[in-house]
Amino acid sequence: MTETAAKAGAETAMAVAERVARDFFARDSMAALLGIELGPVAPGRASASLRVTDSMTNPHGTCHGGISFALADAAFSYACVTWNEQAVGQHCNVSYLAPARPGDILTAKAAEVTRSGRNAIYDITVTDAAGRVVLTCRGVAFIKGGAILPPEELEP
Amino acid sequence: MTETAAKAGAETAMAVAERVARDFFARDSMAALLGIELGPVAPGRASASLRVTDSMTNPHGTCHGGISFALADAAFSYACVTWNEQAVGQHCNVSYLAPARPGDILTAKAAEVTRSGRNAIYDITVTDAAGRVVLTCRGVAFIKGGAILPPEELEP
Amino acid sequence: MTETAAKAGAETAMAVAERVARDFFARDSMAALLGIELGPVAPGRASASLRVTDSMTNPHGTCHGGISFALADAAFSYACVTWNEQAVGQHCNVSYLAPARPGDILTAKAAEVTRSGRNAIYDITVTDAAGRVVLTCRGVAFIKGGAILPPEELEP
Amino acid sequence: MTETAAKAGAETAMAVAERVARDFFARDSMAALLGIELGPVAPGRASASLRVTDSMTNPHGTCHGGISFALADAAFSYACVTWNEQAVGQHCNVSYLAPARPGDILTAKAAEVTRSGRNAIYDITVTDAAGRVVLTCRGVAFIKGGAILPPEELEP
Repeated sequence: MTETAAKAGAETAMAVAERVARDFFARDSMAALLGIELGPVAPGRASASLRVTDSMTNPHGTCHGGISFALADAAFSYACVTWNEQAVGQHCNVSYLAPARPGDILTAKAAEVTRSGRNAIYDITVTDAAGRVVLTCRGVAFIKGGAILPPEELEP
Repeated sequence: MTETAAKAGAETAMAVAERVARDFFARDSMAALLGIELGPVAPGRASASLRVTDSMTNPHGTCHGGISFALADAAFSYACVTWNEQAVGQHCNVSYLAPARPGDILTAKAAEVTRSGRNAIYDITVTDAAGRVVLTCRGVAFIKGGAILPPEELEP
Repeated sequence: MTETAAKAGAETAMAVAERVARDFFARDSMAALLGIELGPVAPGRASASLRVTDSMTNPHGTCHGGISFALADAAFSYACVTWNEQAVGQHCNVSYLAPARPGDILTAKAAEVTRSGRNAIYDITVTDAAGRVVLTCRGVAFIKGGAILPPEELEP
Repeated sequence: MTETAAKAGAETAMAVAERVARDFFARDSMAALLGIELGPVAPGRASASLRVTDSMTNPHGTCHGGISFALADAAFSYACVTWNEQAVGQHCNVSYLAPARPGDILTAKAAEVTRSGRNAIYDITVTDAAGRVVLTCRGVAFIKGGAILPPEELEP
């Protein structure tokens, strides 16, 4: 493959990732419920953020683990679909490292560790605005196959 | 210990579990946000339920994993505090086994596997109204110690 | 189904589980290396044990987590095959709860939590002779399908 | 801090990591049992390798998951002690991605993800000689504190 062709392929992959993730995000009702916003996307990668509100807290007054996990899970799902293949989360483990508080803006970054056959593994890290790690996840997705957006819609 | 004393002790433990979990639940803002209700409680055990709404779905039209996990995480936290000791969730693994849909009522049951020193492990299972298992979790809590409700408030 | 037929079916399932697990165990070279012995087996369940030797320790002088996990993983694999279907472990999480020491006899009990489609989940608990829990695991197996022993070999 | 001081500090940290990990490895009986060798070490990082033998296989004829996990667990423990602080593995998740076979040389690389307070998280990846990922782990260690080697022994 020539350098020009390689560059064109990378640009296409980037455009497809962006296109599919934005479409997927737009149909994610939970994202709207929690005020989750989609951030930068690349093949195998996606980020998402939310602002912690008072209604998202636990009795300790900090962001409920269920909310910070939901943000991570959302970013995981956006990263999963960047190859325009149907995929679903199967297993996930989460470690809570530091509390977040109302007013904090949390950002989740999901990145592919491996993807082969019908399995893919992603690392997801949620940080606050100061860069402190709030939680880390490792998620396993099952690649069902089948396009999310029809290939003809994705042509330049 | 006589049989009468043992029975009285068990009754007290049950009353404390109920009292502390209800107090903790009442201060859980995320529970209110998602419409989570507290179910039966016992020492080391708690259940909670929610009705899946359209606003809780993912782009597949099924209940978002972030929501069903949040329910499990809530039940986990209520079970953790039943001994009237401060505790926080540290790690959790979740496996998604079946989808849930808008209108479904999901119930999470959390039960202690082990509790010794500063660590406790809980299994949490989320089922739909038909008894189908939607997800299973295993959570690790760190026992910080210190009472949640002052012991004098818990006296019969 | 009559009660007699149900009883006959249960007896057959038990005999198949026993037969397949023993055959599988006999071909498990790691079990021989570590001195693992197969214990009671039932459909979806298996146990295995080993005696901790000095050569199995870590620098703390206690049984290395790699060894106690290997025992759990072996019991997991024996439980997986009790339905006479090819299966492989895909994911596993382990929590170390108490140390074991040279001379201790550890027993791992694996029990099916769910099995549907191509996925099965097992809980595995390793205890010492005093019944103290040394570690707990939760393992996910992928059911490849295909018989392990030819059905005609399993006929009564 | 001057650039010279920073460079000297980094050199010291590297020497301490190397020294403590080699001492720890030398007292690891399981490593000797399985033929595990210690590879490169740095602060928060360690690698270890082993050659898969026929006696390490499962009934599928591939390297038993218990063995490849034991290698990962060993590398995890060497990385944990590189700061010359007592630490023990508490929880670990493993995903098996590809089989290994007798004759394969497996290498585990453990790298710190976070370390704060009494908790540290490590990623461990096991690859074969061709660079194919055989398994990935994420481990949680509890930092007990207390030196492994007396500080005076570590002075240049």
